[in-house]
Amino acid sequence: MKSTRPPAATGTERVAGVSRTLAEIAALVGGTVEGDPERRVEAVAPLASAGPGDLSFLANSRYARAARSSAAGAILAAPGEDLPGRDVIRVDDPYLALAKALPLFTPPPPPPAGIHAAAERGRDVLVGDDPDIGPGVILGDGVRVGHRVRLHAHVVLGAGVELGDDVTLHPHVTAYSGVRLGNRVLVHAGTILGSDGFGFARGPGGLVKVPQIGGVIIEDDVEIGANVTVDRGTLGDTVISRGVKIDNLVMVGHNVQVGADSMLVSQVGISGSTSLGRGVIMGGQSGAVGHVTIGDGARVAAKTAVTKDVPPGMTVAGVPAVDIRRWRRGVAALNRLPGHLKRLAAASRRHGEFKDD
Amino acid sequence: MKSTRPPAATGTERVAGVSRTLAEIAALVGGTVEGDPERRVEAVAPLASAGPGDLSFLANSRYARAARSSAAGAILAAPGEDLPGRDVIRVDDPYLALAKALPLFTPPPPPPAGIHAAAERGRDVLVGDDPDIGPGVILGDGVRVGHRVRLHAHVVLGAGVELGDDVTLHPHVTAYSGVRLGNRVLVHAGTILGSDGFGFARGPGGLVKVPQIGGVIIEDDVEIGANVTVDRGTLGDTVISRGVKIDNLVMVGHNVQVGADSMLVSQVGISGSTSLGRGVIMGGQSGAVGHVTIGDGARVAAKTAVTKDVPPGMTVAGVPAVDIRRWRRGVAALNRLPGHLKRLAAASRRHGEFKDD
Amino acid sequence: MKSTRPPAATGTERVAGVSRTLAEIAALVGGTVEGDPERRVEAVAPLASAGPGDLSFLANSRYARAARSSAAGAILAAPGEDLPGRDVIRVDDPYLALAKALPLFTPPPPPPAGIHAAAERGRDVLVGDDPDIGPGVILGDGVRVGHRVRLHAHVVLGAGVELGDDVTLHPHVTAYSGVRLGNRVLVHAGTILGSDGFGFARGPGGLVKVPQIGGVIIEDDVEIGANVTVDRGTLGDTVISRGVKIDNLVMVGHNVQVGADSMLVSQVGISGSTSLGRGVIMGGQSGAVGHVTIGDGARVAAKTAVTKDVPPGMTVAGVPAVDIRRWRRGVAALNRLPGHLKRLAAASRRHGEFKDD
Repeated sequence: MKSTRPPAATGTERVAGVSRTLAEIAALVGGTVEGDPERRVEAVAPLASAGPGDLSFLANSRYARAARSSAAGAILAAPGEDLPGRDVIRVDDPYLALAKALPLFTPPPPPPAGIHAAAERGRDVLVGDDPDIGPGVILGDGVRVGHRVRLHAHVVLGAGVELGDDVTLHPHVTAYSGVRLGNRVLVHAGTILGSDGFGFARGPGGLVKVPQIGGVIIEDDVEIGANVTVDRGTLGDTVISRGVKIDNLVMVGHNVQVGADSMLVSQVGISGSTSLGRGVIMGGQSGAVGHVTIGDGARVAAKTAVTKDVPPGMTVAGVPAVDIRRWRRGVAALNRLPGHLKRLAAASRRHGEFKDD
Repeated sequence: MKSTRPPAATGTERVAGVSRTLAEIAALVGGTVEGDPERRVEAVAPLASAGPGDLSFLANSRYARAARSSAAGAILAAPGEDLPGRDVIRVDDPYLALAKALPLFTPPPPPPAGIHAAAERGRDVLVGDDPDIGPGVILGDGVRVGHRVRLHAHVVLGAGVELGDDVTLHPHVTAYSGVRLGNRVLVHAGTILGSDGFGFARGPGGLVKVPQIGGVIIEDDVEIGANVTVDRGTLGDTVISRGVKIDNLVMVGHNVQVGADSMLVSQVGISGSTSLGRGVIMGGQSGAVGHVTIGDGARVAAKTAVTKDVPPGMTVAGVPAVDIRRWRRGVAALNRLPGHLKRLAAASRRHGEFKDD
Repeated sequence: MKSTRPPAATGTERVAGVSRTLAEIAALVGGTVEGDPERRVEAVAPLASAGPGDLSFLANSRYARAARSSAAGAILAAPGEDLPGRDVIRVDDPYLALAKALPLFTPPPPPPAGIHAAAERGRDVLVGDDPDIGPGVILGDGVRVGHRVRLHAHVVLGAGVELGDDVTLHPHVTAYSGVRLGNRVLVHAGTILGSDGFGFARGPGGLVKVPQIGGVIIEDDVEIGANVTVDRGTLGDTVISRGVKIDNLVMVGHNVQVGADSMLVSQVGISGSTSLGRGVIMGGQSGAVGHVTIGDGARVAAKTAVTKDVPPGMTVAGVPAVDIRRWRRGVAALNRLPGHLKRLAAASRRHGEFKDD
């Protein structure tokens, strides 16, 4: 958090009247209090800007010094972190504890506002209980929407789109006809679901479009970031399975299958018909060619290009992707290479065996 | 299509009453029937989910086993594929045949709905015959739109934008003032045409914006994916030539020229004033610096960084880009390098000639 | 500017009645006239399409020949460029001179049109003088907007968003609740400010969302391109400092700090909590992992992956990033490697010391 200016705590709105003891928080997050269990905090703040009324957290040892000098009233920290003289809530995973504690201090969403007068509904639209549907939202013919759905301004749902319960779509999300979302799906602004796959055949007169008539299925508990694109299947469906998390500006091609609980970090691109198993992690700006399989639990390092199947559990890196240990040896060797080549050339000149090209 | 769950055929809506004989389909796609030419199919489906009433296709040999075990009623396949006991339509290019056959089974677009009451028109707007202009569409002053144009919800056209005939713009497409599209152009949701180029000069007080006053020309038969950005020229125009196909999340910089029938795969980035010839293919996540020329028919592998001119017809790869054969030799050598260096170091120690650094 | 077709001068609208002498222009841009100081030009155009009534510019020596054969009436050029027989305005930096001269020939923006009837305002919204707020704009509860603000069609501002004076947001920009913009900020179409950071903890039942309750601060004189995403902080703020320029399709993660006057070229990705100093330049498609610091004035080459701190002033390249000189030596060595390995293997066979693997 080394920054050119102290981060202001703008976004961190305090919820009036909220106050919790460290004992209460520890009980919620499954931790133990070191220090005063009756101490009260009213908000959560980063180490650098936290004050005596704030809870903060230490989830990465590189911020240990910042934690020791922080003015925070209490700190969520792992057993190994030495924080002398501080009120600490010890937990196995401070980041998970933060996830559990934050809702205590976060204002609840506003009550559902119903359906705005400036929303447009086609024929045969079904909307569940307690909707919050904003201005400029377009619900095409035959759209079916579950209970407690929040559709922010200018969301566009094509004909026949189906959403489960407790779905939130942020402004300007577009779901084309033939897209189905499960329950508790969250999609950030500007994301496009169901655009045509990139399918063109080469005819005598030039490129010929292959009609894209498949759909998109987004299962329960998926979160998708901003300005993502998920193409519809050519035939059949593109599938994002239960619990998958997708970061901003990711591209998912037609007929891709993403297995449950996988994570796609920002700017990942996955070409058509490639299949990811369960719990796969693809790092930022990595990509995969079409028609390959990435096995359960595999990890793809940032910037990597996957060009063939990856076995379950393997971590790969490089262009083209290889086992990350092999890639690391290659990088290390490459770094030593110029010196080696220089000595090799010198030796070769002595032996008359090498000519540099 | 190895997937963690069987793909459902959701998106593949059947068009009521459609039924075609294999002979009819073969005549349309220029193929020959092996088996029963009077057999009828009612839909097209992927190999894994196709049933006896479905036509499917085998365009990639890695799915040959799936084709042999598919329940599809008939399969489009190339001459070399062995599909004993099946009804097959033999064609030179099954993917091209699929492109031709699919429209038989695809529902036609709904009839044009006119101009929605919740669209906004500026002064001196001209709209051709049979428009389908959705809610929230904004047509700026002096916009001119051809016949049979479909503008989906919330499309925004700046002052003076011109569209040809049979143009389709999906939801939330923005065309800034000074953008001109030809006939039969298709643009997917969220794409931005005509934003300012990234042009800043360095002045004594910091960066100074260079006004971007050029335009964008999109010629006939271009298809552009979702959430793409095409910047306007600084002076003169950014040009996407006839028949070009652009995938999602691609960036085309100011004054770029993309030659006819070129293909830009997802997440490609092209810097300012670079010029692509005809029929260039740039692979996913590849990029090009500014002010270079990529010749007719050149191919750029995925993830490649083009940093200087590429001759016509050459295939390049790597960072920086080199002839792909040279790149492959480099990758192969790098993979063998750690072993070589180890042996080299051992040999050197014997000869006293090398020191590792 | 070698292109498959001559670029038309479409975008370059001439402003009726505008005409300037070279002496006037030279005085404005701090240059000296070679040739006729009383010559008049009415517009600015690229070298290839400029005519006798146009001013053009030569900012890159690779276009020197195009300048000599251009029909332009006058050319902005640096002292070293030989342009015999031409009317030239000599300047130290022709690109900076272009930036200063262009506003003379550019039509002024239309006068502010007030607040469109089809814009939506929540409770307690404050709007300054001379607004230009288009159709479909949504101003959430408590939004505060400065003077002379232009909000194009379908801009969405969440509850409590604050904008300074002279801010321009192009169509479909979304700013979530908790986003604050300074003065003279320009944001292109489709950009999303304040979406949730990609923060998930691993719980026993799967991934657990870490609520993202921080904000986003965009300081004065920032320009952001199209379809960019800037995530809100987890706690505290994501900060884009004064004068920063961000190109299209860039991703800025949660709690990132971008120092003043930095430039992020297209498709850059910056992971959470990473900090950039002042005047950093990140090339196209480069990225940085989370929690690292890139020092003042550092430069990151296109396609680079920054994986650890970069000292101030250093230029880095490669995956992972190293000093660019070291990277260049590695690339050069790699290009020579296949030949070396071949000779090495031959030598080894003679000496019986090497076996290829």
